[in-house]
Amino acid sequence: MNNFTFYAPTMFAFGQGEASRVGALVRQFGGSKVLLVAGGGSVKKNGAYDAVAASLKEAGFPWCELWGVQANPRSGKVYEGIDLARTEGVDFLLAIGGGSVIDTAKAIGMGIPYDGDFWDLFTGTAKIERTLPVGTVLTISAAGSEGSDSCVITQEDGNLKWGCPKTDLIRPKFSVLDPTYTYSLPDYQLACGAVDMLAHLCERYFTNTPDVALTDRLCEAVMKTIVDAAPKALADHSDYASHADLMWAGMLAHNNSCGIGRDQDWASHQIEHELSAFYDCAHGAGLAVVMPAWMEYVCGHDVMRFARFAVNVFGCEMDFAHPERTAQAGIRRLRDFFRTLGMPATLEEVGGRAEDIPAMVAHRCEKPNGFPFGGFVKIQVVDMEAILRRCAN
Amino acid sequence: MNNFTFYAPTMFAFGQGEASRVGALVRQFGGSKVLLVAGGGSVKKNGAYDAVAASLKEAGFPWCELWGVQANPRSGKVYEGIDLARTEGVDFLLAIGGGSVIDTAKAIGMGIPYDGDFWDLFTGTAKIERTLPVGTVLTISAAGSEGSDSCVITQEDGNLKWGCPKTDLIRPKFSVLDPTYTYSLPDYQLACGAVDMLAHLCERYFTNTPDVALTDRLCEAVMKTIVDAAPKALADHSDYASHADLMWAGMLAHNNSCGIGRDQDWASHQIEHELSAFYDCAHGAGLAVVMPAWMEYVCGHDVMRFARFAVNVFGCEMDFAHPERTAQAGIRRLRDFFRTLGMPATLEEVGGRAEDIPAMVAHRCEKPNGFPFGGFVKIQVVDMEAILRRCAN
Repeated sequence: MNNFTFYAPTMFAFGQGEASRVGALVRQFGGSKVLLVAGGGSVKKNGAYDAVAASLKEAGFPWCELWGVQANPRSGKVYEGIDLARTEGVDFLLAIGGGSVIDTAKAIGMGIPYDGDFWDLFTGTAKIERTLPVGTVLTISAAGSEGSDSCVITQEDGNLKWGCPKTDLIRPKFSVLDPTYTYSLPDYQLACGAVDMLAHLCERYFTNTPDVALTDRLCEAVMKTIVDAAPKALADHSDYASHADLMWAGMLAHNNSCGIGRDQDWASHQIEHELSAFYDCAHGAGLAVVMPAWMEYVCGHDVMRFARFAVNVFGCEMDFAHPERTAQAGIRRLRDFFRTLGMPATLEEVGGRAEDIPAMVAHRCEKPNGFPFGGFVKIQVVDMEAILRRCAN
Repeated sequence: MNNFTFYAPTMFAFGQGEASRVGALVRQFGGSKVLLVAGGGSVKKNGAYDAVAASLKEAGFPWCELWGVQANPRSGKVYEGIDLARTEGVDFLLAIGGGSVIDTAKAIGMGIPYDGDFWDLFTGTAKIERTLPVGTVLTISAAGSEGSDSCVITQEDGNLKWGCPKTDLIRPKFSVLDPTYTYSLPDYQLACGAVDMLAHLCERYFTNTPDVALTDRLCEAVMKTIVDAAPKALADHSDYASHADLMWAGMLAHNNSCGIGRDQDWASHQIEHELSAFYDCAHGAGLAVVMPAWMEYVCGHDVMRFARFAVNVFGCEMDFAHPERTAQAGIRRLRDFFRTLGMPATLEEVGGRAEDIPAMVAHRCEKPNGFPFGGFVKIQVVDMEAILRRCAN
């Protein structure tokens, strides 16, 4: 086990009806004028917006609103939000939505007290030293941004989908998690979310760090819960238990409680970032394509870890004479699981084309320290090409 | 799943050598003059005291010291600490030790800004509204106080071992967890710690709340880790991996990440508090006696949950035709596990006597709302007597 620092000071208010506490929570964390950040209007249908507005009104807080955050959130909306927040004298950011909305609010929060271009904080030209406080009301179980120290934005100038350096400064002050807000999600989006959170755990699970028994078991506990709950949530969009399991699992999958003390991988995420940069596909859909291909490609690096994944997450029977067969069975089960969720399995199914592969690899090359990447197996140019070709079949 | 609030804003610095950060951590959380709280001197042998003193000195912080906190910590030391801290103008409390030392520091912290007797905050006569910040350097994996919202003190006037009302206000600001400080613990103390943390999970695991799949699995993950790591740590007092597993497991067992959204039990703890009040036995030793007796007594209330415990924590084979046999096998395995750790199994082995049972029950009766207690099965006077009689055989 590696030494680690773990600091996750987000207050979670979990359960049906908890959004009525938003006003009190904003007050508790020092806000007085709020910028509400949202996407395309679904939060007006699922009840989240009304609950938040009523609570802010009751608490007597004025607020302004920034709408129109898209999936794979863009820098343009961040610049717009920074301008609006400065003009209006906002001191608290409230994201109502999923990861894209929360990440936009986080980026606005770090941009406001910084004099230059907020993108400097992503490139490392400047360091994130202060942010405005962010609260969230989650409406999609997926990205885990409601409890995480990370934030991903696409810089439109250059089509660069980058994460900022991880910092506990940008963890939300509070997050309201009401599972009923996820009832009205389309199947596809709900499934993408389950893939995303499972991927967040896999990126942590596949490690070369020895002696990580406890976090191994925590990863498996959360992964099994997702595998169990996602089909139930899809089958019944008003099943509270499975939607609640997914909502808390998505947070645990990415607040790093399952990843502390161990080297992590993140190669699949890096490869997927190129897919969504090229085709604007849903992040979870891209991961459903990339992650099994990555697993097949790197499985030989540590067959016993993949066998453990197969046995402990998917209930495969261990073939002690041929552990590699168990390992492969686990990857097949993961593919099958994604397929039963209605997820794509190939590059073509997310709108991609095999002939774009060199361009995607070249695009990755432009990133500072673009290659190699991946903590479990170092991915070089040739490996990324091979994994993407595997996706194209 | 019940609605819940989860807020655990403690910064953990985990791993060998992390105590060198204490000075910087005190600064980060606003301290300038420190009261160091400790027990009987073992922290001078295991290196914790020297590391802390060097770090505080380097950071330029003055400090004073309160020594002599005992197991089952007493109110006398709390009063002494409050006086000392007020006289010296202390603004930060630093506990170096295990749960008793940390709980003493927490009680001092809540007592300093309160005008009356700190015990009012335990009885509910007054509400905990402010505390001095507390940091910890943990040297015993057991109580979980390094990350918890609770604190247990014995009021010498009346021999009352009580917990204060749980509040996030008393969670430590930071905790340094260096597993090597636990290498020098006597076997008995190390084993008591493992029992204590396993009990913290059992108190949460045995619940009547439906639809708690995720926290069930988290409980099992941490329990399995303890069952696996404790014998290894006992067999080799310099095995970093098992000591590290126990140290983080002890924190997770009691910061409530495994208990949110579910009713909890705590009957075994309540009964054990009488044992340690009467015989001053180690808390873990008392729990090793009480918990299996409680399990046998209440098993019929939910046989399938006990069967699940047997299968998922102890690897028992499920007897689908006779689940009660599996349930009982699990309790036997727990007894065996405690026995292999060198723990007592009977009242007599912790210095108790069957003839004291009525007095222990009567002592419990004196507590406001003393009966019934327990969230899984309501324990009445007759039940407490029966469970204690089972301990005496």
